[in-house]
Amino acid sequence: MSTHAKATAALKRRLGTRVSTQETERFRASFDGSKLSFLPDAVVRPRNASEITAVLQAANRHGVPVTTRGSGTSLTGSASPVRGGWVLDLSRWKRMELDPVAGTLGVQAGAIVADIHRTVEAAGWFYPPDPASKQYCSIGGNIACNAGGMHGGKYGVTRDFVLALKGHLPTGEYVEWGSGTKKFSSGFNLRDLWIGSEGMLGVVTEATLKLIPLPAARWTLLTSFADEPAAFRAVKTLFALRVQPAICEFLDRYSVQCAERATGETVFPGQAGKPVILLELAGTASEVAETRETVLAWARAHTEAFKEARDRAEAELLWSVRRRCSGAMFELGDSKLNEDIVVPMRSYERFAAYLERLRRSSRLPIPTFGHLADGNLHVNIMYHSADHDEYLRAEAAVSQLMRAVVRLGGAISGEHGIGLAKTPFLPFQHSPAQIRAMKAVKTALDPQGILNPGKMFELFKVWEHPRLRIKLPWDHK
Amino acid sequence: MSTHAKATAALKRRLGTRVSTQETERFRASFDGSKLSFLPDAVVRPRNASEITAVLQAANRHGVPVTTRGSGTSLTGSASPVRGGWVLDLSRWKRMELDPVAGTLGVQAGAIVADIHRTVEAAGWFYPPDPASKQYCSIGGNIACNAGGMHGGKYGVTRDFVLALKGHLPTGEYVEWGSGTKKFSSGFNLRDLWIGSEGMLGVVTEATLKLIPLPAARWTLLTSFADEPAAFRAVKTLFALRVQPAICEFLDRYSVQCAERATGETVFPGQAGKPVILLELAGTASEVAETRETVLAWARAHTEAFKEARDRAEAELLWSVRRRCSGAMFELGDSKLNEDIVVPMRSYERFAAYLERLRRSSRLPIPTFGHLADGNLHVNIMYHSADHDEYLRAEAAVSQLMRAVVRLGGAISGEHGIGLAKTPFLPFQHSPAQIRAMKAVKTALDPQGILNPGKMFELFKVWEHPRLRIKLPWDHK
Repeated sequence: MSTHAKATAALKRRLGTRVSTQETERFRASFDGSKLSFLPDAVVRPRNASEITAVLQAANRHGVPVTTRGSGTSLTGSASPVRGGWVLDLSRWKRMELDPVAGTLGVQAGAIVADIHRTVEAAGWFYPPDPASKQYCSIGGNIACNAGGMHGGKYGVTRDFVLALKGHLPTGEYVEWGSGTKKFSSGFNLRDLWIGSEGMLGVVTEATLKLIPLPAARWTLLTSFADEPAAFRAVKTLFALRVQPAICEFLDRYSVQCAERATGETVFPGQAGKPVILLELAGTASEVAETRETVLAWARAHTEAFKEARDRAEAELLWSVRRRCSGAMFELGDSKLNEDIVVPMRSYERFAAYLERLRRSSRLPIPTFGHLADGNLHVNIMYHSADHDEYLRAEAAVSQLMRAVVRLGGAISGEHGIGLAKTPFLPFQHSPAQIRAMKAVKTALDPQGILNPGKMFELFKVWEHPRLRIKLPWDHK
Repeated sequence: MSTHAKATAALKRRLGTRVSTQETERFRASFDGSKLSFLPDAVVRPRNASEITAVLQAANRHGVPVTTRGSGTSLTGSASPVRGGWVLDLSRWKRMELDPVAGTLGVQAGAIVADIHRTVEAAGWFYPPDPASKQYCSIGGNIACNAGGMHGGKYGVTRDFVLALKGHLPTGEYVEWGSGTKKFSSGFNLRDLWIGSEGMLGVVTEATLKLIPLPAARWTLLTSFADEPAAFRAVKTLFALRVQPAICEFLDRYSVQCAERATGETVFPGQAGKPVILLELAGTASEVAETRETVLAWARAHTEAFKEARDRAEAELLWSVRRRCSGAMFELGDSKLNEDIVVPMRSYERFAAYLERLRRSSRLPIPTFGHLADGNLHVNIMYHSADHDEYLRAEAAVSQLMRAVVRLGGAISGEHGIGLAKTPFLPFQHSPAQIRAMKAVKTALDPQGILNPGKMFELFKVWEHPRLRIKLPWDHK
């Protein structure tokens, strides 16, 4: 019996049915949204803090890797147990408790983000982060990768809404970082060190979220442009007017054309095949009415055409375009490398020119859409998996793209994190001194290296690992 | 010649006039707003990154403490060089560069916060953090203690407006954390670990700040209440209406009475001696007009009296009350322990009752005012320094207060940090495991312990150290 097997048997004696070594359960916990699959030795479903302490202490004693898991929607492999060991499944930790006066929500790590939205909105509060997988993903996973979504530009990302965290150090001790208050300057800030650390520096079991008042009014406007550079220039004009749209979603012409071919409908009647920006204002009724005038004046001067939604039903119709486009891309290839890069606003036009060059040099379709209020663009490099040459060109294009965004002052990931898939690019973003500092922090908190090993700093050659050919509930239709 | 003296002589040979060992310069750098004075061996004024690297490398080689300094306005002693060594003075690093389209400001560590306000407001942008010392304090110091101010409840604190940092690891290497973009999920978040770490984990030389559109309109309302519990209950009613005032400043009756005795004027005519709350709404003109109606209806139902400012001049008149009250307190004692504790909204009334008990048991005046939108209250324990018994009771009262705020779910510091003065209370806020984790991070990044030693984790018996009897420009009049 191997050391891991012995340790697993001992843990089973201690925690009983909370430890499963069943084949099907292990398989289900072997992959995340990246579809990179590595079988763990066991799946552990702790019921309380002292059971988590026991799991982590045993893992440290026997050198067993522990990978914390919520819903497993990560697109980068950060929840795939690449070194085996134990998967610590917190998906049943779903309790929520709203403080309707202070506007805070206490929440356990396994709570689903869409359930959080429903709970707080019913009480007139708003939790803005809204990753595309919100119907499935857990708040613990959102904290692990500092998830964003469409509201990032005006309202911020997960980090901006976490007041306090509870959980465990890699060595097992229960700890609390921050209090459920909006000010805290009492000791080093390990709360924010945990956020975005992809489960490598601690196990988050609970969070206190900050809420803001639910905007009473929303207003949606669809706009079209002659080409991508024109769209980018126009959006900068809008921001220079000090308008902060709640949402500012861009679809380039390739994305629009995909959606149009897939549905047989024109995204924006009369504007077939042109890049579009979908804007949404949110706020009090009078604030939205006032800002609407500014935006309409801008639209008359800077867009090819525009169309406002007169009510929520019309707005939903406009939004359905945005939702359709990600799935429609699969007509361009059966596979895609979906990169969530970030570019600063000052580099938008240079980035548009760069993408055109990348399309030509890679000879691949690269439809791009995303959040222009915060520069977080989803660049989709499409290829046919059976065509090895196409695949190699796609991998090369990703690498070139990553170098370009860093050169333009941006980031290799805005909301997905590094996980396994982006490990080749971490050195583009961070100098050797920066990576040494991060690793020193990791070793300080996790001297045995048991929490989510193999991620972030170790080169994972994603091109050598076939992905599972399965359809997940949150895959784009 | 001691090791430090030899190291200082060597540094002087290398950096010439940037290293000063003049008595007056060393004295001026020996203390901060805490007036706890410890003479450094030298004051170093580096001109560029490579000089900072040289200073830190020499400090590591010879074990010389390095304390980074901006304007030295800290109230906790976090800029006092308690172990001597070198003071790294960045007060001349003042450059700013505005991106007026993206709404970001690149800024060097020594820039004064009020200059930041003026620069960005002239371009229609807003940087909300506004500590009371804003005319003097530097952004580097604000980052070091995660400074807040009156806008914290609605807009957030310094941390919420820092997109990226540049600077040096304690071992000297130049590093950059984050990019100047609103989304970043690429590696461990050492940016936010640095923020609030009081100069113990790195040297911040530059920051990119996030700005928001300058509110076009403001509206001010002064309200009075029968007593403190009534004020706290009323404020909770206001927040339950989903109103987010930009500012919500509370003055208890002791603060009001001090101001009235000091000036011979009534703070709120007809409401002499009653606790008051000063509210300010900010936003677009129509948003403020709309919310004003809600607030006036609330005021009619929940206050003793209220008075709205009809213009900015009247608003300034109301605000002058708030500004006068801190200085007026010195009629109650020549010294004060000003504690910037935080209590969660759910505990406001219990905290009011606790403060009354503390006043009785300590037999000391404890006027209290502060930011009710985020629970950050300034509790001022007044005593006469010549009366040793009063002094001991004041120190005992602080300790009891700190235990109480933690028990109520709050924090021992909301915006000043720990420094030297709050070291006795850190174990009230943080468990041994939490403190061990913080210390492990410190050792990982600063193995020689050269950056700002003696702070945060080492018990400093503030009561054994006489404070300088000097008047600083930012002392309350």
